Amino acid sequence: MLPKSQLQFIKSLHQKKFRKEYGLFIVEGIKSITEFIHSHYTIHSIYYISKIEPKVDIFPKNIKHYLISEKELQSLSTLKTPQGILALVQIPIEQEPVEKDLRNTFSLLLDTVQDPGNMGTIIRTADWFGIPNIICSIDTVDTYNPKVVQATMGSLAHVTIRYTNLNHLLETIQLPVYAAMLNGTSIYETTFGHEGFILLGNEGNGVNPNLLTKGIQQVTIPRFGCAESLNVAVSTAVFCSEIKRGTRR
Amino acid sequence: MLPKSQLQFIKSLHQKKFRKEYGLFIVEGIKSITEFIHSHYTIHSIYYISKIEPKVDIFPKNIKHYLISEKELQSLSTLKTPQGILALVQIPIEQEPVEKDLRNTFSLLLDTVQDPGNMGTIIRTADWFGIPNIICSIDTVDTYNPKVVQATMGSLAHVTIRYTNLNHLLETIQLPVYAAMLNGTSIYETTFGHEGFILLGNEGNGVNPNLLTKGIQQVTIPRFGCAESLNVAVSTAVFCSEIKRGTRR
Repeated sequence: MLPKSQLQFIKSLHQKKFRKEYGLFIVEGIKSITEFIHSHYTIHSIYYISKIEPKVDIFPKNIKHYLISEKELQSLSTLKTPQGILALVQIPIEQEPVEKDLRNTFSLLLDTVQDPGNMGTIIRTADWFGIPNIICSIDTVDTYNPKVVQATMGSLAHVTIRYTNLNHLLETIQLPVYAAMLNGTSIYETTFGHEGFILLGNEGNGVNPNLLTKGIQQVTIPRFGCAESLNVAVSTAVFCSEIKRGTRR
Repeated sequence: MLPKSQLQFIKSLHQKKFRKEYGLFIVEGIKSITEFIHSHYTIHSIYYISKIEPKVDIFPKNIKHYLISEKELQSLSTLKTPQGILALVQIPIEQEPVEKDLRNTFSLLLDTVQDPGNMGTIIRTADWFGIPNIICSIDTVDTYNPKVVQATMGSLAHVTIRYTNLNHLLETIQLPVYAAMLNGTSIYETTFGHEGFILLGNEGNGVNPNLLTKGIQQVTIPRFGCAESLNVAVSTAVFCSEIKRGTRR
């Protein structure tokens, strides 16, 4: 049995303001937690039910771990169907993106993406295509939101996510920018070099026009049918695939 | 005010068994309803609050329409934030897929896709890329589920969805089949012809091995990073884009 105060502390991490205050977020499920253990993230503590014990036995012994009841897990979990184990993981201290880390690779810039499911799917897609950096506008959905963490399927452990003023970033870092828009050059006619930014916009409004300074290339996934737009995670995938298909393997 | 029996009748359509019994499903929001009005679907009736009245005025006059209170709409809607209007639309009578309709085009085959959001995004993506037919295994999520309808953003009105025994279909219709798998030929090395099926599997288990009869080409979106898999709607988008990029425009 955990003390009531500890239960309340963990439950408070369902909310962004407490995640920010304590610098911790919740990860659920043995697969995702294992990904975080084998990453640069620091695990604060682990809570699991007896059924999961054999799997926890192989975790490093220096991680604080607590056997809890199914009822306790139910109250702590953010999932409809809890997966028997959850971990508190430290939110890494954000470094401002610097030019040398963003050279010779592609990074995603997300402008005001709001839906946690989309955000999680974008992170998972970036991880699949080996895109190491995602840089988000300040008002993009919190990546440590439990719904985002869940939708990344462990990929959050492999991709660096940062929040910054995108206008300022685009002014200070001189790299090619390809903005996903409805009326640009066809993505199939665009030659992507070996480095740059892919800029993707909000679900309803697209990319903020303020970000479209000169020199930014507007690129479109051609429409062959009737839909008014594509889902932002789907667009991300098509862009990632087009960038990488040049480097076939 | 609607009679209580009518309210109950509409609310019953939140459930699959009543959708099947009455042959009707719910569409919400002025944009989606407009798409259905201009499609081959038949509108049964429309329910809207006074704020929406000017927009309803331009709808064909032969559609039964009812002015309802915000409270009534709240109780009928399947959305957290109702959009002021909902319509009941007739579920079309399904025709078995026939060979001549599937020649000279690509169709998606969905094997046991379960998540309504994924299903909706797949339909929207197919519509964007001009893929006219989606054929689902019997145990794929119901496309008239309100969450699916919502996620299609009106695209359900443009794409024909059918449910059938996929094994039987693959035996009777001889077209090239490309199955999205983890260990196949690279999608970037695959030459898609001008017709065929793209076979996509369940979120957790992928394509059922029983469907992988000889002659089926297993195709993979190469992994450049660490994620274990791609979301099924994301995979669909990459396949659709690869098929269509050959026919650039």
